[in-house]
Parts: sequence; structure tokens; C-alpha cells
Amino acid sequence: MGERNKRYFVGIDVGGTHFAIGVVDGEGKLLAKHTMPTGAGRPFGVIVKEMADTAKRLVVRAGLAESRIGSVGIGVPSTIDSKTGHLIFANNLDWRDLDLIGEFRKSWDVPVYVENDADCAALAESMDDAAKGKNTLLITFGTGFGGGLIMNGKIFKGGDNSGFEPGHFVLFHKGIQCTCGNYGCVEAYASVSALVRQTKEKMQACPDSLMWKECGADPEKVNGRTAFDAAKKGDAAAKEVVDAYIVYAALSIANLVTLFRPELIIIGGGLSAEGDYLIKPLYETAKSRIYAGELLGMPPIVPARLGNDAGIIGAALLGTVHI
Amino acid sequence: MGERNKRYFVGIDVGGTHFAIGVVDGEGKLLAKHTMPTGAGRPFGVIVKEMADTAKRLVVRAGLAESRIGSVGIGVPSTIDSKTGHLIFANNLDWRDLDLIGEFRKSWDVPVYVENDADCAALAESMDDAAKGKNTLLITFGTGFGGGLIMNGKIFKGGDNSGFEPGHFVLFHKGIQCTCGNYGCVEAYASVSALVRQTKEKMQACPDSLMWKECGADPEKVNGRTAFDAAKKGDAAAKEVVDAYIVYAALSIANLVTLFRPELIIIGGGLSAEGDYLIKPLYETAKSRIYAGELLGMPPIVPARLGNDAGIIGAALLGTVHI
Repeated sequence: MGERNKRYFVGIDVGGTHFAIGVVDGEGKLLAKHTMPTGAGRPFGVIVKEMADTAKRLVVRAGLAESRIGSVGIGVPSTIDSKTGHLIFANNLDWRDLDLIGEFRKSWDVPVYVENDADCAALAESMDDAAKGKNTLLITFGTGFGGGLIMNGKIFKGGDNSGFEPGHFVLFHKGIQCTCGNYGCVEAYASVSALVRQTKEKMQACPDSLMWKECGADPEKVNGRTAFDAAKKGDAAAKEVVDAYIVYAALSIANLVTLFRPELIIIGGGLSAEGDYLIKPLYETAKSRIYAGELLGMPPIVPARLGNDAGIIGAALLGTVHI
Repeated sequence: MGERNKRYFVGIDVGGTHFAIGVVDGEGKLLAKHTMPTGAGRPFGVIVKEMADTAKRLVVRAGLAESRIGSVGIGVPSTIDSKTGHLIFANNLDWRDLDLIGEFRKSWDVPVYVENDADCAALAESMDDAAKGKNTLLITFGTGFGGGLIMNGKIFKGGDNSGFEPGHFVLFHKGIQCTCGNYGCVEAYASVSALVRQTKEKMQACPDSLMWKECGADPEKVNGRTAFDAAKKGDAAAKEVVDAYIVYAALSIANLVTLFRPELIIIGGGLSAEGDYLIKPLYETAKSRIYAGELLGMPPIVPARLGNDAGIIGAALLGTVHI
């Protein structure tokens, strides 16, 4: 196929706070990218129209005609019926039972594919050399605790095709309530949102902690790095927050290893920037809590290669997988 | 193939306390069966020789020549490497890293297949009309908490082929120690062994409970039915034991539904004899703890059709699947 006929793909990664749009070539190379606030409180139709309009403008900005776009892929932090693309439940956006494809095509009549955002990211990351051919689990630490599992080259969608929800198995029977309505979910303990809550709670209890300085003495400015940054400077209260958080995250991963035995685990989301400071203790703690770890071994944990772009690229690649 | 050339299969279901041997035809019909104590403290070689010798005698008792046996299948409550049949770790038997196939063939030189016992039971149960073509999860409440998952007609063995261990994901972070060495495993709360422990603990705290009468005032005679029987007669302490146990079992099942979304759940093991008294509250409680239960629905829970014979029949059928 000549350069002139080369097809491009649009990927949209919808997050709880922001959505990111990218234009990608058939090999997953990102040519243009734009990020903007999701504005999650607004009506669904308004948000989706904004996505479609922004995507079309980005295609122009990338120097391409709309006709060169083979398809649009959308990754949503939601349970998706893969057969129909129907959006079943996105707890962090409070979206349920919605026809995202139909809504999008009101603004842009193009083939549209929808999948869970973590599944999209897993698809993109699983194309890395280190992951190729391996059954790979991607865990994304973000507003939620997302996970995508690639088994035998395909997105693992569960027995009834409604997906795999690693952020919502119950880690603490009588735990705090999750945004999904259930109690004690992984996401309520091991997401970045949970880490922010845990950081704020410890700050209230420890007025002398360095964490106050890290966030400019403004609890509203606490983010996923606050406790990590203060802990690295030796703050004891921050270290407690980080240590407890790592146990929650490690237990979540250990349970997934016991059940799914992936060959490689990739960590994505903002927290993956912590590198070995996060990954080394995460690996060791998870290894100590999997079934028969000494005999079966703990699969390696590596940071995501594509960073925050994995969601966009994987969403865009949905078109290449389906076509 | 004429009746004279018809092949038969031997299935051995190895449990923590007893093992059962059966001779089965190619359609899974049980022709002869024998059960005996495992004697789990004895050397591995002695136990395996006894299995092989007993199996050979049973074949004779069934009126068959040894040459009519196509293969022997053994189901073990163990992690198995399916490619080699190597036994990796059976926590309830304290067996690890053993060549069960080689050991068995010292006594009987016949094709031998080994799989996890719950996987064998799931294979047998999944051939029922109600389960046929469905992605089916079998949960076995026994000495351990076993589980087998049939996805797309095959035993789900995890990404690295070492299996799926639903009894050993961590349900309680700081929970009691499991026989596998880990803490807070499902098996330490939701197996029949755990129920027996929970029953004894409540009896110690409640000297007036009807549970004492149910076990002839002998705590050594407590079994999985003691609390259920007393609860049905209105004993409050027994009801507390049963209610708490059902929550543990339901949470375990709910987590598996959130991750695997099976289309049907089959309950096996001795406890399945409790029927609706167990299954109804188990279903309702699990439904309340799965992710997005109102939108995705809770798969039905039904009792095993084959009862305790599922393990034998499924083990025997391993030969028909492999051949």
C-alpha cells in the first residue's frame, strides 16, 4: 500500500479527570496528541460531542484528511460488552447503560470501537518486545485501579464477555465503600485516588509531617506523589503511608497472580514513574503472598513502556485488530 | 468399534482424607468404585503403590482385563504442570515437586494423566446438559476449597499453565495462617475444614449450643454438617456459624465472578448436599458483592449433579480428552 493510501487511526483514552486523543499510524506510532479535562459532571452527549469535535480538529492538525482515518477507538474506564461496544458501567464517570458508539457517530460517522481503557493499554503494552508472545497483565494505577490481561494474544474478557474487573474484587470484607457501591474493593485501597485519601488522613494525624510542605500546606493539592516524595526525604509518616499502600497494591497483584498466573506484569499509570522505589517492594511483597511462590515463582514486574500514551495507542489499535 | 474392543478408563480422585477409584466407560458412566483412606502421613511411594494395586483389583472386580483400560487419570488437590503432569505442590497432602506419573507406572505400566482434582470435577460436571457449551466454574467445598474453571470447553490453566488456585487468593489480609503457609486464604475461611474449626470455636464459647448434641458431645466428631444440622433446628449459635461461613464462601465466589464472569457456577463437595439451605443465601450474598451486579447479573449457582463421583469421572475422562 502506497504512502498516499496509508491509513491512520484515532485513539481516545477517557479518564476520570482528563481525556486524551491521539492520531496513530498502523504500527502504533503517535503522530499528534491532545489532552483536555473530561468535565465528568456534564451530560454524556455534550462530553462525547466534544471528544468527536476535538478528534476531528486533531486529525486536521496532524495534516491528514478525515478520509485517511480508518477508525476511532475509545478506551473507557468501564465494563464494556465487547460484542456490541455497549458501555455497561463506568463507576468513576457515573455512566451506565449507554450507547457510546451511536452517540459518537452523531458527530463523526466513522467506524468506532470501544473497549475498557486498561484493556486498551494492555493491548498497546503487550506489543513491546519484552512482552511479545507472553501472557501479560497490565495494572494501571490511576483514578481507578485498572487492569487488562492479554492471554494468547487476545484481551481476556471473562466467560460472558463482560470483562475482567481487577479493581473491584473485595480485598477487605468490611472495608470502606468504593465508588462502585461495593465495600472493600481493591480500587478503594490501591488506586491513586485511595493513596491521596490515605495521604490526607495521615497528614491530619501528623501536623509535622513533611507531606504538608510537599503539597504547599494545601490538602487540596495532595496527589499521588506527595507521600512518595516526602518518604524519599525520610519523613516517617509518609513512609508509613507508602508502606501500607504498597501492601494493598501487592496483595491485589498477588491475588491476580494466584488466579491467572500471567508471565509478565506491567505497571502503568502515573505511579509507574516511581520506578524501582515502587516496583521493588511491590514485587517482593506480592511474591510473599502468592500461592506456592517458592515453587511457582513470581512473574517479573516492569514499568509500562508507553507511559500515559498506552491508553491512546491501544484504543487506536482496536481498529487494526478488528479490521 | 465393537463391544469387545470398547475401552474403559480408570479415574482416581485423591483427597486429603480418602481416595476414590472408579472404572468408567468412554461416556463417563461409572461401572465400579472403591474408596479408602489416603493415609496421608505415609511415604509417597507407599500411597501411590496402594492406589495402583487397588485400581488393578477394581478392574478385575469390574469383570475387565487390564488390557481393556485405555488410561488412568488421577485428580490431585495440587498445582500440576499440565504439560508434564508433574505435581508441583499439594498443600493438604504436604506433597511437593513429585513425579506422580512415574511413581504410578512403577506398579502399573499404563498411560497416566494427572490434573488438579477440582479441574477434573469441573470437566465431568461441565458435560451435563445444563452446563454444556457454557463457561462453567465448579467450586468444591471439601478439606480444601477447590475450583475448576472450564472456558471455551477447556480447563483454564492460567497464563503459565500452572493452574488457577481459587482456594488461595487472600481474602483476609491479616487473616489466620493457611496450610499453604500464606495468611488469610479463602481455603482457611471457606473450606469444610475451616467450617469445622469455626464450629468447634463457637462450641467452646457456647456450652449450651445444640451443636454439642449433634456431635455426641465429642468435638473430635464435629464435621461439616454439625453447624448446619443444629442451625436448621433453630440453634442461635449454630446459625451464627453458618451465617458467617456463608459470607466467607459468598465473598470468595463473588470475587471469582468479578474476575472471570462464568456463565454457570456449580457447587460440589460434601456441603453441596445442604441444597437450597446453602445455595440460596450463598447466591444472594455473592450477588450483593460482585461488581455491577444489577447491570451484569449474577450467574446461577446449582449443586453438582455427579456428587462425589465427579472427581473420579473427570479424572477418568482426562484420558478421553487427551486421546
